[in-house]
Amino acid sequence: MKKYGFYSVMVAIFALSAISHYGGWNVMWQFALSALAILFVAGFLGKATESVAHYAGQRLGGFLNATFGNAAELIIAIFLVKEGLFDMVKASLTGAIIGNLLLVLGLSVLLGGLKYKQQHFNIQIAGYNATLMIMAVIGLFVPAVFVKAEHFSVEKDHLLSLSIAAILIVSYLLWLIFSMITHRSLLSDGEAAADHGETPPWSRGVSVLFLVLATIMVALVSEWLVGTLHTFTSRFGLSELFVGAFVIAIIGNAAEHSAAVMMAMKNKIGAAVEIAIGSSLQIALFVAPVLILVSTLFGQTMDILFTPIELTAIAVAVFIAKSISKDGTTNWYEGVLLLMVYIILGIAFYLV
Amino acid sequence: MKKYGFYSVMVAIFALSAISHYGGWNVMWQFALSALAILFVAGFLGKATESVAHYAGQRLGGFLNATFGNAAELIIAIFLVKEGLFDMVKASLTGAIIGNLLLVLGLSVLLGGLKYKQQHFNIQIAGYNATLMIMAVIGLFVPAVFVKAEHFSVEKDHLLSLSIAAILIVSYLLWLIFSMITHRSLLSDGEAAADHGETPPWSRGVSVLFLVLATIMVALVSEWLVGTLHTFTSRFGLSELFVGAFVIAIIGNAAEHSAAVMMAMKNKIGAAVEIAIGSSLQIALFVAPVLILVSTLFGQTMDILFTPIELTAIAVAVFIAKSISKDGTTNWYEGVLLLMVYIILGIAFYLV
Amino acid sequence: MKKYGFYSVMVAIFALSAISHYGGWNVMWQFALSALAILFVAGFLGKATESVAHYAGQRLGGFLNATFGNAAELIIAIFLVKEGLFDMVKASLTGAIIGNLLLVLGLSVLLGGLKYKQQHFNIQIAGYNATLMIMAVIGLFVPAVFVKAEHFSVEKDHLLSLSIAAILIVSYLLWLIFSMITHRSLLSDGEAAADHGETPPWSRGVSVLFLVLATIMVALVSEWLVGTLHTFTSRFGLSELFVGAFVIAIIGNAAEHSAAVMMAMKNKIGAAVEIAIGSSLQIALFVAPVLILVSTLFGQTMDILFTPIELTAIAVAVFIAKSISKDGTTNWYEGVLLLMVYIILGIAFYLV
Repeated sequence: MKKYGFYSVMVAIFALSAISHYGGWNVMWQFALSALAILFVAGFLGKATESVAHYAGQRLGGFLNATFGNAAELIIAIFLVKEGLFDMVKASLTGAIIGNLLLVLGLSVLLGGLKYKQQHFNIQIAGYNATLMIMAVIGLFVPAVFVKAEHFSVEKDHLLSLSIAAILIVSYLLWLIFSMITHRSLLSDGEAAADHGETPPWSRGVSVLFLVLATIMVALVSEWLVGTLHTFTSRFGLSELFVGAFVIAIIGNAAEHSAAVMMAMKNKIGAAVEIAIGSSLQIALFVAPVLILVSTLFGQTMDILFTPIELTAIAVAVFIAKSISKDGTTNWYEGVLLLMVYIILGIAFYLV
Repeated sequence: MKKYGFYSVMVAIFALSAISHYGGWNVMWQFALSALAILFVAGFLGKATESVAHYAGQRLGGFLNATFGNAAELIIAIFLVKEGLFDMVKASLTGAIIGNLLLVLGLSVLLGGLKYKQQHFNIQIAGYNATLMIMAVIGLFVPAVFVKAEHFSVEKDHLLSLSIAAILIVSYLLWLIFSMITHRSLLSDGEAAADHGETPPWSRGVSVLFLVLATIMVALVSEWLVGTLHTFTSRFGLSELFVGAFVIAIIGNAAEHSAAVMMAMKNKIGAAVEIAIGSSLQIALFVAPVLILVSTLFGQTMDILFTPIELTAIAVAVFIAKSISKDGTTNWYEGVLLLMVYIILGIAFYLV
Repeated sequence: MKKYGFYSVMVAIFALSAISHYGGWNVMWQFALSALAILFVAGFLGKATESVAHYAGQRLGGFLNATFGNAAELIIAIFLVKEGLFDMVKASLTGAIIGNLLLVLGLSVLLGGLKYKQQHFNIQIAGYNATLMIMAVIGLFVPAVFVKAEHFSVEKDHLLSLSIAAILIVSYLLWLIFSMITHRSLLSDGEAAADHGETPPWSRGVSVLFLVLATIMVALVSEWLVGTLHTFTSRFGLSELFVGAFVIAIIGNAAEHSAAVMMAMKNKIGAAVEIAIGSSLQIALFVAPVLILVSTLFGQTMDILFTPIELTAIAVAVFIAKSISKDGTTNWYEGVLLLMVYIILGIAFYLV
């Protein structure tokens, strides 16, 4: 009974938010309604992910969630690329990577850790995640050093960027083959844990359908909410870099947040880690390279060069997340450290 | 009998050193007496720490020792901050961090390893130490990149420095709650080992009293010794950076040295690691931030910006110490490597 | 029967290549013959190494192979140092380090991983290898930062370079004592595995003799091949940096390649890792420092300063290799990642 109440309210708020957006209401109303709506649809997405994870295992469920979460970001970013707003794209990619590694993972680990003294996940996955994060940092760091130290021409810069983008995409696709096909059993930790969980309210098919539906709703509401932000940015005197890397990233990751935290609080920290780290890896190894390739199709190549402060933020997030995840256990204090680093970066970006 | 002889000589030398200092004797005499006195009082401190560790477990004993050792450094540094000698403060903080991570830890591991083929300590602690060391590096590295790359104004620099100082202090206090209260049992490795050690000569209360007393004596003698150094510096043509980062740091860490090496040679490498790494973490995450906050009280904010070579020295020390400590075992060769890195840095700083 | 055929052909090709070289034939012929010859002699070296490893254990066998492989490189580099071609020496040292860590290790892990789902090696060795790699990076990184940030004079630069060279050599020699003498049993993983392998065709003495002979043949053929490269370089418009760091390094490591890949495909990944990582450590901690000391004997000190892009390449290779080797297991995907990073660096160097 209670549940149907939740869904009725969600649909109503979602509809109101849609009307306010397409009807061109006052920006304050649009903001309030879409902010409220995102809480509901993110909750819906969390439930759908959990249900799918029950059937598919924690890891595949986490992967699906990360992918659906990033699909929205990819679509928004493609529009930005099309308009040549490369700096904002890179700022939001940076924000999405550090937001997942520090804020989503940090909140999950902290809240899960306040409930359970110690939470465990597959230590092998932690190792692979760490290696892939290093791969991502290498892919962003090498061009930054070479292009600057050797004064590459624009043509060389673009050639290097496109090559590295292609290599990262191939690496990511092979990783999917490795982790989902050839070495699936090695990396699985979810099936056993999920087996003795409670039965989800939906069947397998309905769960997948709801996952897709919830993701679309989150994407739409996120976009409406993002649309109202520019007005706020100018009103509160925030820089585009800060808004791109923190405000948009936090809202854009609402889906991952709610899903990961819910998983962590049900002692399924493996799924939470997969959502948070998997999502940031997907952005660094797949979304960002795809945007570079897509930019060439629009006739204007976006290079892979991130600014020194963006690279620092990504490297810092990777190193602390790697150090915390490598033993395959988490506790509340590790969540605190991740959030502390996020706050340090937040203040630094705010001051830029 | 023999022991009472030791303490009588110690008190005599200590008194003589005090007289030479406050009586304004010839600097050569002051130096010789205080250098001799520090050997005795450091030995006393080592015995007191060992005795306290027997009652409190290796870790808490190590923490107490690190804290008492750094109390002296903190007091000296506050006087330097008050006089606005920020560069010398940072040089001595750098020296204390790398001195603990490389020299104290290196000597302990080497001398312990020459006696025992392999020494073991709690691998979980090693992991947390590594993460906290990375946190410290992040806290020093992020402002260095942002302030320089984005040309921060002095106000922004100070705001960022104060914010990060506050975050590091909160992180350190929460770490104490985590490691001493909520997850104490997880991180303990001393109780069992200490149980079947020989009974210390002093009761619990006397041990703590002697620990406090010994720390005060070490602090006093260190200060007297430091006071004589400037004369030497100019006589031998040494730079202030080298004296601050190496000479003062070596003398100021005499307490940690003697205590840690004594522990390592009794096969209590866990306590030695706790003293060395714990002390450097305390300096990076607590002493340095407190100095920044204190500097504002004196009306002149010291920022958190370390020079590139100081940052390099700290990062290098952290990476090698992290790599060596992460498997929870030590041997003579790992001690050699730590000392080799210390020598490399010593030569580099000497040449500046 | 079949085997004798292989050796007859090898001797014939080797002799032809020698005649073409010393007879001053057309460069195209010299190139074709020496390239063909290297395939055969590298195969011979692989068999000899495998046979020696059977008697000596995987690790000592790997060490011997790494040493014999690098002896050739050392000799070639000494001639370059004598002629003052310091930049080319450093480029080829860089190329040898990253070639071993990425290409040799990557191919071994990939090809071994395609045959065996998961391959295992001694996790302790992985830890020590990682620490030594960090030591090497520190030895190259510290002078780069200090000399540049503090504007060292040429004298100070040379003094620092010679000091660090001496420290690295001492560290390497102590490592040999540690790993071969005082803690040999700890680090051994080969004896047991080799015991139930098939008996090699040669006796212990003959195996060692053939190992020496094969190494000499590889060194000679490598040199002949390298001699023909300059003609090609200019014909194909390649930069000396790219040729030094990639083309020469690939050919110069032919011995390690064939030996390591053969070991990996016989499920002796421990020996393959030892050859690849051991060889790169030997270059960074022994060959490079020896060249610096040797350069002073020739009256012209080569400093230890590598360019930013060389340092980046080495650091990147070390971090990914460290991350992949630290769990003591390998699989095809880890080989792919190593090769991907090699390709990224290859493209970047090619564009310089």
